[in-house]
Amino acid sequence: MSHEKFKSCIDACYDCAAACDHCAAACLQEQDVKMMARCIALDMDCAQICRMAASFMARGSEFAKAVCQLCADICQACGDECAKHKHDHCQECAKACQRCAEECRRMASAA
Amino acid sequence: MSHEKFKSCIDACYDCAAACDHCAAACLQEQDVKMMARCIALDMDCAQICRMAASFMARGSEFAKAVCQLCADICQACGDECAKHKHDHCQECAKACQRCAEECRRMASAA
Amino acid sequence: MSHEKFKSCIDACYDCAAACDHCAAACLQEQDVKMMARCIALDMDCAQICRMAASFMARGSEFAKAVCQLCADICQACGDECAKHKHDHCQECAKACQRCAEECRRMASAA
Amino acid sequence: MSHEKFKSCIDACYDCAAACDHCAAACLQEQDVKMMARCIALDMDCAQICRMAASFMARGSEFAKAVCQLCADICQACGDECAKHKHDHCQECAKACQRCAEECRRMASAA
Repeated sequence: MSHEKFKSCIDACYDCAAACDHCAAACLQEQDVKMMARCIALDMDCAQICRMAASFMARGSEFAKAVCQLCADICQACGDECAKHKHDHCQECAKACQRCAEECRRMASAA
Repeated sequence: MSHEKFKSCIDACYDCAAACDHCAAACLQEQDVKMMARCIALDMDCAQICRMAASFMARGSEFAKAVCQLCADICQACGDECAKHKHDHCQECAKACQRCAEECRRMASAA
Repeated sequence: MSHEKFKSCIDACYDCAAACDHCAAACLQEQDVKMMARCIALDMDCAQICRMAASFMARGSEFAKAVCQLCADICQACGDECAKHKHDHCQECAKACQRCAEECRRMASAA
Repeated sequence: MSHEKFKSCIDACYDCAAACDHCAAACLQEQDVKMMARCIALDMDCAQICRMAASFMARGSEFAKAVCQLCADICQACGDECAKHKHDHCQECAKACQRCAEECRRMASAA
């Protein structure tokens, strides 16, 4: 298994992790933090699994597909939550999550 | 969801992570490293997901069960591989993986 | 370098990581989340470096001491912040951070 | 602190993490794995701290600079080791480590 073969999915995972980490920290600075609680919680989950999925792919792990499948589910949930909030960091995060969910689903279902 | 409720599974995950990290490093010092290649690769996978599973549980994440399900599968594969090797660190790691796989399966199927 | 030699510091790190992850999630459920923003941010930092420090020690890494030194600083800052808040999860986290800071300082200065 | 301000350093960290993860796995497949033992060990250290440094920067953590300082030291050690080996994955990893060490040093010393 090649590192290059996974490049676009690895990139999407790390972009998503950075967007989620940034969104979590920025949500904590918003006026109404309480309203952002689930967004922050999912950002933490999503950043963590995106970093791990990228790492499994870069090592060509035999479990890379299984991790990407779960990563896609968490990205989807995080992206759906972020999309509900109007803050720029949430909207940008929603896009990164959506793109990463698609890349991970493709990766998980690749032959 | 309570942090205490997950305590035994969190402990099993962190014990397993420490055993896998130690086993990976010790395998690299063995005479026949080549024979240990899959053991080392699975140790890396297993240590990483065990740390993540413990973290999801401690946060009471809505994805804690899904992560534990995948963690159980990786622990099982790692434990099966470690069990094939006679080194103490492999045998100890096999036990930690087996125990963690059981705890994670119980957690994943809890009501 | 032996895995057993580091056992009490590894345990302190993983206990602290679990306490910080739990505290972060519990802070997000409090009435006045805004007041808890720095506590949550430091909990995230501290949980992450504690998991990493434990992992470096379990592998007997040549950088284990340097990581423990930084981990001690972050634990100290997180514990000081948690100690300001009366919630049980903050008080428990403060204790875990304090203990981990001490173990990591001892580890970092060991011969 | 702005997420964008750190973008080039975050990118360098994630590129380096991917290069290290790939190098570790590829070293395990080489004929003379034993000769690669320190390279693999440092790859694990470096991948892990690079992911963490990127995460601290993306959250704008008050400890981002301290983490980057340590990350630079580990990248330097890993890059120096990788540079000794002629495999493509080692040479590519050496370059990614070198670039990341420079970015992290710049970040750590920024006003």
